[in-house]
Formats: sequence, structure tokens, C-alpha cells
Amino acid sequence: MRKENKDAMKARTRNIRLLVSYDGGAYHGFQRQTLPVIGIQNVLEEKLELIFGDTIELAAAGRTDAGVHAYGQVVNFFTNGSIPVDRVVRAVNSLLPEDIVVREAMEVDKTFSARHSAKSKIYTYRIFQGEVPNPFLRRYAWYIRRPLDVGAMQEASRVLLGTHDFSSFRASGGAHMSPVRTMYEAVCSQLGEKIEFRFFASGFLYHMVRNLVGTLVNVGLGKTMPDEFQNILEMHDRQQAGATAPAQGLYLYHVNY
Amino acid sequence: MRKENKDAMKARTRNIRLLVSYDGGAYHGFQRQTLPVIGIQNVLEEKLELIFGDTIELAAAGRTDAGVHAYGQVVNFFTNGSIPVDRVVRAVNSLLPEDIVVREAMEVDKTFSARHSAKSKIYTYRIFQGEVPNPFLRRYAWYIRRPLDVGAMQEASRVLLGTHDFSSFRASGGAHMSPVRTMYEAVCSQLGEKIEFRFFASGFLYHMVRNLVGTLVNVGLGKTMPDEFQNILEMHDRQQAGATAPAQGLYLYHVNY
Repeated sequence: MRKENKDAMKARTRNIRLLVSYDGGAYHGFQRQTLPVIGIQNVLEEKLELIFGDTIELAAAGRTDAGVHAYGQVVNFFTNGSIPVDRVVRAVNSLLPEDIVVREAMEVDKTFSARHSAKSKIYTYRIFQGEVPNPFLRRYAWYIRRPLDVGAMQEASRVLLGTHDFSSFRASGGAHMSPVRTMYEAVCSQLGEKIEFRFFASGFLYHMVRNLVGTLVNVGLGKTMPDEFQNILEMHDRQQAGATAPAQGLYLYHVNY
Repeated sequence: MRKENKDAMKARTRNIRLLVSYDGGAYHGFQRQTLPVIGIQNVLEEKLELIFGDTIELAAAGRTDAGVHAYGQVVNFFTNGSIPVDRVVRAVNSLLPEDIVVREAMEVDKTFSARHSAKSKIYTYRIFQGEVPNPFLRRYAWYIRRPLDVGAMQEASRVLLGTHDFSSFRASGGAHMSPVRTMYEAVCSQLGEKIEFRFFASGFLYHMVRNLVGTLVNVGLGKTMPDEFQNILEMHDRQQAGATAPAQGLYLYHVNY
């Protein structure tokens, strides 16, 4: 068995928290996979094991899907390894491939869990809307040729604010947890041909941001009216919402503890 | 022989000018190569031949090197093909890989040459300077860890304005043309961790921008004083300048006719 049990992990002397950015394009999501498929977790654990001389088992704030990116993923792990925390960033980045970067490392209290201690998260979603695609953003945004009404998408986004049952935007494959979350901020902004959604909530259901964006884009295209968007939210039925937006536009931006 | 001669090309009825953007990361430069190595020209000519039903031979404003990008490359070609010019952009983009995009197509006078009619060009060069690299810019900027003095780089850049012999910044492999060019604008600007150089000149020698940036970065690092930079320019000797900056930060931004 590669991984030790939870209690043995917690009996270790140190709890290390990392802030990680990655380009998810080459990976089958964050979560550890069985080779030859690889998750970002496989790569991070392998390099951390070399540095700490310990088996490493990461807990992560968000288990991003295949192709999804992160600016501010947070992970933690227990270790008996002795490397000083202020040397971790350079040591691990010297081993990691260029598409995964550890931005910060800190020693934290043993009670901290990147997954369970998270209070809220921010996801962003990027769209490139233009007559022709932008070759530099093909891996980093959803390309949409037809013009989008950003004002209508912004108006519809406001409906999401507050505490709601978000079942309409949960993938059918999602876990059987409560579908109730609180949305603190839902903004759609435009800078030239770049359109960005920003969702700040207490938590997110499986595929929730991509389903929200797919449905909001229908509003932007005039296929769905902003007040119909409110009905979709209130029906608590995945069948009513739009298609899942593609992975390459999504970023786990920030996690609050 | 794949290509017809120049006179036969010019006897054709139409001269088509294209504005092209590409991510140069996967190509051995713009220029046509012998398979299995490919240049952007190979791909563009192949797709245009399918659309125009003609052998196509492109002339380009700038022959970008391996790994160098373009926002605004300009090419032209002669054809007898009958597709209306307003259908060319969508037709060719539907065949091209996502890292090459034709942004505009227009019918031009037979005297127009993307290469010989160019009056001036703008190149930009991007640097990402930060304590840790940015995984999203690894293919689109030069990563430099140590802080750079942008004011000193801007001051040194001003020395380049006007008409000069730029031999100090020409690669030894360059052609035996006159090394005299006129620099209209040379700017270094910073936005957070992103630093951008912008060079607007009557023309550029082989590797000139990358050699300028390599030398200016030495100024930014404090290895070369801004007044020494002036000496380097005036010595007309490639041995005096800094190393060639890496290809992935360079963009052919715009061509004026």
C-alpha cells in the first residue's frame, strides 16, 4: 500500500501548507490517478517525497477537473522531513515541470486542513469573444465567435447572490452532499475581447461554475432571458440549465480560510 | 518542382494579402522547411492551396525564428483561385490548427509585396519577473527571477532612438545588408510582474530585438550601466552586447505599409 493511514499521517511532526498555480492542460485533473494517466497530485507528491524523504499524501482545497487551471490552489500534508520551510519553494520548483509552480510554503497548525478548513473560494472563468480566435488564448479561455450581451449576463449573475439550492447547476455525477451554497459575489466583466466571470461562494458543487457559465452564455447570446435564468435556478433541476462550459476557461483563483 | 517561378506567379490574376497571428511555440519559425521539420509557411500554404486550388507561394513581412510569435504578421500571394475574398478568413481558419489564425484577408494591387512594401515594423518582447515563475506565461515570456530596474532599462532604450548602425545587435549569421536602421520608438513598460519592450523601427536586423533585450536586461540587472549601453551601440561590434534573449518572449506585433 502506497499511502499510510490517516492517524499515522497526523502523528507526524509537521503540517505544511502550499499555495500552488498550475496550467491544467496536460493533466487529468488535480486528483491522483493511476498511471499512465496523471493528475497534478501525482507530480506534486512525487517531487515533495524527494525533498522531504517521506511518503506524502496531499489534501487539496479543490479537486479541479481535467484541463482546469489554478492560480491559487491550496494543499497541505503531514511530514517528518526536516527541510526548513523557507527552502521548500525553490527546492520543489527546481524539480517540478514548468506547468506546476509552488508559490508559497508555510508551516501550519496540525488542525489545518486545506480541504476541510476552507471557508470560501473564488473561481474565475475566461471567455474570448471575437470575430476570429486568439491563438494565444486557445488553452486559457473559451472561444465564442458570436457577440455576447455582457450587461444581460451581469444582470442574470446577480440572481445568484445569497443562499440557494444550486442543484440546477450540479453535474449528475456529483456527490450526495447538500446542494445549498452561499454566493457572495457573481460578476461578469469585459476588457476588449476578453470576458471574465468571477464567482465567490462558500463552496461549489461538482461542475457548478462550468454549468453556470454555460447557462449564462445562453443569456448573453439572447437564447435565455435574464428572468428565465432565475426560473432555472429555482427549479433545482439540472435538465433546465445550459451545457457545461469547456474546462480550459476555468481557474481556481483563491481559497479563503 | 513544387513552386512555379516568380514571373508565372505574377501573371496570375489576384494578389491576396493576409493578416496572421500565430503561437510560434510548435514551429521551426515562419519560413518553409523540409519535412519532418515544419515552418508556419508550410501549414499556411498547404491550407491555402486547398481553398484556392492553386499552388501557393507566400511572401512574408518578417521571417520570424523558431519559437517566435506573431500578432500581426502580413503575407501575400498570387493566385487564379476564385473564392471571394470575404470568405477566405473563415474557410482557412476552419482548416488551420488552433495555433495559427488568419485575422483578415484582402485583395490588393499586384504591386503590393508583404516583404518589400513594408515601411516599418513593431516588435514587442515580454518578460515575467517574479519570485516564482508564472505557469501560464512559460511559453509567452522570458522568466527572470531577479528584480529588474525598469527605469534604467527605459533610460538605456532611449539611446536607440534615431538612425544608427545596429551591427552590435546583429547575429553573426545575418545577411550582408546595410546594418543601418531608424528606431522611431523604444519603450520599456511594467505592469505588475509583467515587463514589456516595444521597438518600432524602419526595419530590424537578424536577432536584433532579442540581442537588444538581452543587453537591456543586463542594464536592468545592474551589470551594465545605461551609458555603457550607448558605448555598446556605438562600437558596432556584436562581441560587446549581451546574450540573445530567448525566442518565446518575442512577438512580431505590427507591420506598416
